[in-house]
Amino acid sequence: MPTYTAPTKDLQFVLQDVLGVSSLDTPGYDELDADTTGAILEEAGKLAEGVLAPLNTVGDEQGCTLENGVVRVPDGFQEAYDQMREGGWMGLDADPEYGGQGMPVVMSMAVGEMFVSANMAFNMYQGLTHGAASAIHAHGTAEQKATYLPKMIDGTWSGTMNLTEPHCGTDLGLIRTKAEPQEDGTYKVSGSKIWISAGEHEMSDNIIHLVLAKIPGGPEGIKGISLFIVPKYIVNEDGSLGDRNAVTCGGLEKKMGIHGNATCVMNYDGATGYLIGDLHKGMRAMFTMMNDARLGVGLQGYAQAVVAYENALGFARDRLQGRDITGVKNPDGPADPIIVHPDVRRNLLMQKSFVEGARAFTLWGSTILDKVHREKDADADGLISLLTPVLKGFLTDKGFDTAVLAQQTLGGSGFTKEWGLEQFVRDARITMIYEGTNGVQSLDLVGRKLPANGGKPIMAFFDLVKTYCKENAEDPVLGKDFIEPLKAASKDLQEAGMYFMAEGMKNPNNALSGSYDFMHLFGHVCLGLMWCKMAKAAQARLDAGDTDTDFLNAKIATGKFYMARQLPETALHLARIKTGADTVMELDAANF
Amino acid sequence: MPTYTAPTKDLQFVLQDVLGVSSLDTPGYDELDADTTGAILEEAGKLAEGVLAPLNTVGDEQGCTLENGVVRVPDGFQEAYDQMREGGWMGLDADPEYGGQGMPVVMSMAVGEMFVSANMAFNMYQGLTHGAASAIHAHGTAEQKATYLPKMIDGTWSGTMNLTEPHCGTDLGLIRTKAEPQEDGTYKVSGSKIWISAGEHEMSDNIIHLVLAKIPGGPEGIKGISLFIVPKYIVNEDGSLGDRNAVTCGGLEKKMGIHGNATCVMNYDGATGYLIGDLHKGMRAMFTMMNDARLGVGLQGYAQAVVAYENALGFARDRLQGRDITGVKNPDGPADPIIVHPDVRRNLLMQKSFVEGARAFTLWGSTILDKVHREKDADADGLISLLTPVLKGFLTDKGFDTAVLAQQTLGGSGFTKEWGLEQFVRDARITMIYEGTNGVQSLDLVGRKLPANGGKPIMAFFDLVKTYCKENAEDPVLGKDFIEPLKAASKDLQEAGMYFMAEGMKNPNNALSGSYDFMHLFGHVCLGLMWCKMAKAAQARLDAGDTDTDFLNAKIATGKFYMARQLPETALHLARIKTGADTVMELDAANF
Repeated sequence: MPTYTAPTKDLQFVLQDVLGVSSLDTPGYDELDADTTGAILEEAGKLAEGVLAPLNTVGDEQGCTLENGVVRVPDGFQEAYDQMREGGWMGLDADPEYGGQGMPVVMSMAVGEMFVSANMAFNMYQGLTHGAASAIHAHGTAEQKATYLPKMIDGTWSGTMNLTEPHCGTDLGLIRTKAEPQEDGTYKVSGSKIWISAGEHEMSDNIIHLVLAKIPGGPEGIKGISLFIVPKYIVNEDGSLGDRNAVTCGGLEKKMGIHGNATCVMNYDGATGYLIGDLHKGMRAMFTMMNDARLGVGLQGYAQAVVAYENALGFARDRLQGRDITGVKNPDGPADPIIVHPDVRRNLLMQKSFVEGARAFTLWGSTILDKVHREKDADADGLISLLTPVLKGFLTDKGFDTAVLAQQTLGGSGFTKEWGLEQFVRDARITMIYEGTNGVQSLDLVGRKLPANGGKPIMAFFDLVKTYCKENAEDPVLGKDFIEPLKAASKDLQEAGMYFMAEGMKNPNNALSGSYDFMHLFGHVCLGLMWCKMAKAAQARLDAGDTDTDFLNAKIATGKFYMARQLPETALHLARIKTGADTVMELDAANF
Repeated sequence: MPTYTAPTKDLQFVLQDVLGVSSLDTPGYDELDADTTGAILEEAGKLAEGVLAPLNTVGDEQGCTLENGVVRVPDGFQEAYDQMREGGWMGLDADPEYGGQGMPVVMSMAVGEMFVSANMAFNMYQGLTHGAASAIHAHGTAEQKATYLPKMIDGTWSGTMNLTEPHCGTDLGLIRTKAEPQEDGTYKVSGSKIWISAGEHEMSDNIIHLVLAKIPGGPEGIKGISLFIVPKYIVNEDGSLGDRNAVTCGGLEKKMGIHGNATCVMNYDGATGYLIGDLHKGMRAMFTMMNDARLGVGLQGYAQAVVAYENALGFARDRLQGRDITGVKNPDGPADPIIVHPDVRRNLLMQKSFVEGARAFTLWGSTILDKVHREKDADADGLISLLTPVLKGFLTDKGFDTAVLAQQTLGGSGFTKEWGLEQFVRDARITMIYEGTNGVQSLDLVGRKLPANGGKPIMAFFDLVKTYCKENAEDPVLGKDFIEPLKAASKDLQEAGMYFMAEGMKNPNNALSGSYDFMHLFGHVCLGLMWCKMAKAAQARLDAGDTDTDFLNAKIATGKFYMARQLPETALHLARIKTGADTVMELDAANF
């Protein structure tokens, strides 16, 4: 059986030492002192370890079942759901006006990492609710907010997002679900949606579906899409539940992983829906939710890597096989633990340096998002918009790769269900696909985010890195091992950006053929920057006489590994980008 | 449902145009004229498409079950097994003296690719038999060969390899299974073996287990291991089956993939065994079998990528989503097929350039193995020994990655069981682990194969590449796009080798920390060489006026993609290697 130990100390290190959240001037951050964040992490960690993690294998083995329209979730999920709800965890960062706890996003992400590592399929039920509630909060009328938010935020009701149809996912302009206006101002929604996570279950009293649909006679394609609230049970004016709406679960998807989450075909058969946001502006409303959700999916990617790495590390310390080539390390045993072997260490350090870097990147991104939410800071908005596809695409690709590496550490045991590593791999796999495939993320990055606002956000990012390098170039710890590699990587990123500007103008395919490599190049620069910040924070504590030297020196050592061995990937990505579109576009589709 | 179309034309291209098998002077190769290889590929392809592929999903869904010691295989497996046996496919490359067809290895590998692509879990039943029969052929007495080989080669009996025990896999010196000598010259074998593929089933009348065990009082560790034949049913002197031996299946492993194959715990409880090969030289006998088996596992890795790519390509041509940014390509449809998008093409070309390169590499390696088997050529033996860990490690790592890429092409559909891509990913995953994890392959490469025979094999490989580059430097098609990148990559490989020589002498960890990167660097150089050979062969046919221009030009275009976009990975691997052991070894095991 796999184990999970909440990395509260590492999370606290990032929040307090690296990001210094309590000293940031973002409104509400003054409450995030070390005692408070420590206490919250501790409580959430206990829940993750004690309640959610033990249900992860159960969820995978049992999956969900559909009988007579009713979806049954795995054993123990209802009890865990109730416990999460009663603890107030579901509304951690929600608006206090509607019963939320009003914590910053950075705190809900730190807590979320632990919940997702412990049980990703379970956590999706509340994750989807969170997304749907965010959209209602941003785009709903005062009445809609009052009707739905309090019960969604406290988990009494849950929520879903309904975008995909059998013939379209990425290209939502093609959707066929229609919403016919009724005389009372409501709409009759009809159509079929697929891959609806948490689409149907009975853990909550009602499910609030957000559904993209077209109103007949509206504009063609993407410009004619509106967003509708379609509750499973109609909500009466007094807030009580009325009739069952004409929305049913038509089937459960059989899939590679996240078996504990009900992935539903949802059939809308003239269901009563309420327009949310402006007519024909459904995509905009959906994207509000999607951008935050993408950050959450990036988190899912690395959170699976976190728990996979923990188990790989435990195995590598216990498993006795072979001897250290430089001298026996475990003379009393029949062999040395495999962590003595350089190739095993290389593998473990790839895992460790990724998950810790990814954690810092995600929480840093969350602080930027908080500035947007709490200060309406335009620069922060530009920056997080730019970083979002990188957070989603890079962290999920590498999160999956890392789970695969962790599985490899266990050799044959990694392939067995007994050790649980293979579930982390299967569960992590979806994160590269949903909320926009990583290919789509890279197009968003290069096609939309790079040129956004005349390139101001990307220039701001370059400045940020440049300034950081300049300020720390002479630092005795950072200078050679950290700043120099970061400068080289950042130079690769700038050169790639310049290539896109020059060559993409001539032929857009020159940019699009390199978009995926650019996303990875960008991700490495971000993780490189994070490792500089982590090493600096660790050194500062050491310089101040902190006695937790093993922990702090490990941060610096792990950072050195990342800078020396992982960051040089940027040169490969740049080399690929500069080959342009020629070899990508040459072959006719018929001749593949 | 996934589909499979046997790539007989591509296989024939490699056999005849690239390798020119019928003109090689290896004994027996003169029979491999184009008509013969074409006819064999055609027949095997039909079997793969019509009989094995339809059972692949069945095998995954049903898996194997154990009841009262009897293992039931999935529906249809018995019938398919009988058909394979009756067609003589199981003994394709086996010794005619024992009923085999005596074909070269290169032919059985070409055929094997199709069988494995169609149904890897099924094909393992005969694959294990093949390995066990090879060991008996190489190390058995005349009597043992006469007793076991004819029925194993015709598939009436099957075989297994028993190495791993719960506490040891890589470090076989630790095994506890013991073999106690009896007065009649037999042994009583007792112990428990795990992860025994095809360990128990009733498709064959008998199962011949090859078991590593220690004779009490023998040398310690790896030097005290002997190999034993332990048949499920004792074979009487007249060849008929006698008593059931004391070997039973104690359980079936629950695992990530290859569900159609019975992965067994095998319990030996004083089972009658017969020593095969020399006393205490069991590892040598096992390695004979393992080296050939590793080539077969490399093939499994890329064969899963082949079928995954086929399905990704089909999807990319059919799925309509978005429009080509340079102009609508499918004006009559609601959107263009996704193969118009540069990032989808990039993904597909990564798949295509890998599977075709891997196929050529594997079949080229097989021709070298045939020289060893048929001519006892020492240089060929040195070369294939060197290449074996690369064939196994690189092709399975990249084969898995490629299956993941193919899954990504399908977006959400790739995550569903319905489309079958996720099974290819799960099945491919084991190839990176068994027959020695890929980490172990890299240690074998750097620790044993590089220094072997004073470095003669690696120097011979460098010469081979150098000569090839020199001979083709002025070729108008090859020169700039192929030879130059190959030279650069080969230079990286040489530099890495020199680094190991210089720095590995000072500290072996400097070499071992870079072994995995070296294995990948080496693999890329090999695939680069293969793409040069394929492009050259295609161009030669074009120059000769061949009218299959689309097929031939596609080879050249795909090769250009590989040389421009994939081969530059060598520089990254070299850069990593040259960072040495410092960052890998710095962190104390306790502080990870």
